[in-house]
Amino acid sequence: MEVVYWEGQRLFLLDQTKLPHQTTYVACSRYQEVAEAIYSLKVRGAPAIGVAAAYGYALAAFNYRADPGLPLEQFLDQAERELLATRPTAVNLRWALERMRDAYLNIQEKSLDNIRSVLLEAALAIHNRERKLEEKMADFGASLVPPEANILTYCNTGALATAGWGTALGVIRAAHNQGKSIKTFVPETRPVLQGARLTAWELHDAGIPFTLITDNMLGYVFLHEGIDLVLVGADRIVANGDFANKIGTYGLAVLANYHNCPFYVVAPSSTIDLDLEEGKEIPIEMRDPREVRELGGQLVSVKNCAVLNPAFDVTPHHLVTAVITEKGVLKPPLEKSIRRSFDEEGVQR
Amino acid sequence: MEVVYWEGQRLFLLDQTKLPHQTTYVACSRYQEVAEAIYSLKVRGAPAIGVAAAYGYALAAFNYRADPGLPLEQFLDQAERELLATRPTAVNLRWALERMRDAYLNIQEKSLDNIRSVLLEAALAIHNRERKLEEKMADFGASLVPPEANILTYCNTGALATAGWGTALGVIRAAHNQGKSIKTFVPETRPVLQGARLTAWELHDAGIPFTLITDNMLGYVFLHEGIDLVLVGADRIVANGDFANKIGTYGLAVLANYHNCPFYVVAPSSTIDLDLEEGKEIPIEMRDPREVRELGGQLVSVKNCAVLNPAFDVTPHHLVTAVITEKGVLKPPLEKSIRRSFDEEGVQR
Repeated sequence: MEVVYWEGQRLFLLDQTKLPHQTTYVACSRYQEVAEAIYSLKVRGAPAIGVAAAYGYALAAFNYRADPGLPLEQFLDQAERELLATRPTAVNLRWALERMRDAYLNIQEKSLDNIRSVLLEAALAIHNRERKLEEKMADFGASLVPPEANILTYCNTGALATAGWGTALGVIRAAHNQGKSIKTFVPETRPVLQGARLTAWELHDAGIPFTLITDNMLGYVFLHEGIDLVLVGADRIVANGDFANKIGTYGLAVLANYHNCPFYVVAPSSTIDLDLEEGKEIPIEMRDPREVRELGGQLVSVKNCAVLNPAFDVTPHHLVTAVITEKGVLKPPLEKSIRRSFDEEGVQR
Repeated sequence: MEVVYWEGQRLFLLDQTKLPHQTTYVACSRYQEVAEAIYSLKVRGAPAIGVAAAYGYALAAFNYRADPGLPLEQFLDQAERELLATRPTAVNLRWALERMRDAYLNIQEKSLDNIRSVLLEAALAIHNRERKLEEKMADFGASLVPPEANILTYCNTGALATAGWGTALGVIRAAHNQGKSIKTFVPETRPVLQGARLTAWELHDAGIPFTLITDNMLGYVFLHEGIDLVLVGADRIVANGDFANKIGTYGLAVLANYHNCPFYVVAPSSTIDLDLEEGKEIPIEMRDPREVRELGGQLVSVKNCAVLNPAFDVTPHHLVTAVITEKGVLKPPLEKSIRRSFDEEGVQR
């Protein structure tokens, strides 16, 4: 099942807000519809929103109608700004849009037709790159999984989150495919229930045993179920190894640390933001209070009561056992191993 | 608003599963209806189920019809067993039923009329005792609250949970009434949402500022909101100070410890079970998997998927700053201070 695909000058996005009950696609024929789909979580997960935004940028070129008042370049800049503004925490979005702008700037023959086909190629390349990287990551990660393992994961980091193979869930899938005996614990992940709705669905589909829990059962599971390792994704990893991920990840990391349980972060290198030194610099997106006050559209608490609804929290690097990217298993001190992983590939910052 | 009251040979219980949307009472005219109401969480909270069970035992005497095949004493024993079996973790239930049986055994003049009136008096006495103790507890607890305090509480430990003034929430209420500037953070407490539905409602009603969060935001709140103390209730405290409380309490205690935040347990001494030495001996009630798979009766995950649903977890005593009972503030080493609190009152075990 494709999470994101392009067909006939339209971008199709699997509507993840409807899962697991309905499998429907949103057909976007304008880039603004892509932005709306990202904002409203129809497509979510740091790598997947990067891929969707790349296609959204290409779509803008297809939307453009020659207009002497608004040159194409300004139109694309506007699309980039609107797509970027949808979700402030995940850095893959920015990374993908920067790649798309570079692709545009590098075009020699600036006919509209050529621009459209080059940008579409660039988006497809980002999508394909993501798929390949994730297979590598999954293999690196699976090498750390014992032959029999109880794994605690969090939120959804599978194919749905990445438009590829998955990050943390990709590791679980790879270990399972290698014949390892895996049992997975899946916290539901309030308020939007990506664990209960999406991860449970993917694991069920893949035939990997799992047990669904509420988010406040993490401590119980560490005490009574013998967790061998924790695998989570990331929305942004900064230079010192601090990282932002779905709200609740920090509490999970503290519990893992308290129980001396290995805690791995699995994310493509496009999730790493070397422009920021420390996690406290990462902007945290605050979402609609109704997500907390309501369940399935039904008010469950006091009308209009005060609510906090940060979509992410930041986990300090000292709680991280290793970061797994497509470049390998990066171990502490993370500041050094992260930087070296870029230097080795000759990436210039 | 009364949570539990007796009128015209019936026990009325405020149906807490309907709150905050509806304020309706269940009228129990048979003790089996009281047992069902406890099992199905219409009345919940360790002290409140103790009080309800005491009335339920008295109700059994009113239900009894002279029958040479089934003497009253056997009928009462059966009622006691059925009431006790409803919830295995909270010890107040056992405590209250033992008191009721003692009251029965001490009756000299065993006419049915006299037995009925003595048992009803005994249940009323347990209820009144609970109210008085809780005021004392609240005062001891409030003395630990600074003039301005951000307090994290958990589940519902207010008037609804105790048929009195409340345990942890009673402390918050007392501190507020003393003019202290209190801000409370209320985790929703999945799966049954006692925080979102009941604690938010009680705090709103009392005019005490609060902010509703999901259970996975605890770490974020410690990092960003400056929590001064944590106040929780308990369903059973054992001899060494380990205690069972609503699922998620253990994870909260680990986070409080990690952030060097005082962590207080507030419970009447009837919650203390000196028959058990360590927390691992406490039986943990497992509830219906549908509570986890469903929200408001709607399936949110994979049909029939494996689920864990422990209603409680156990927190080790070394994570507890102090236990607050009606006898005072019991500080570590808890094993000693708990035992001394009974000895001083001359309680025989």
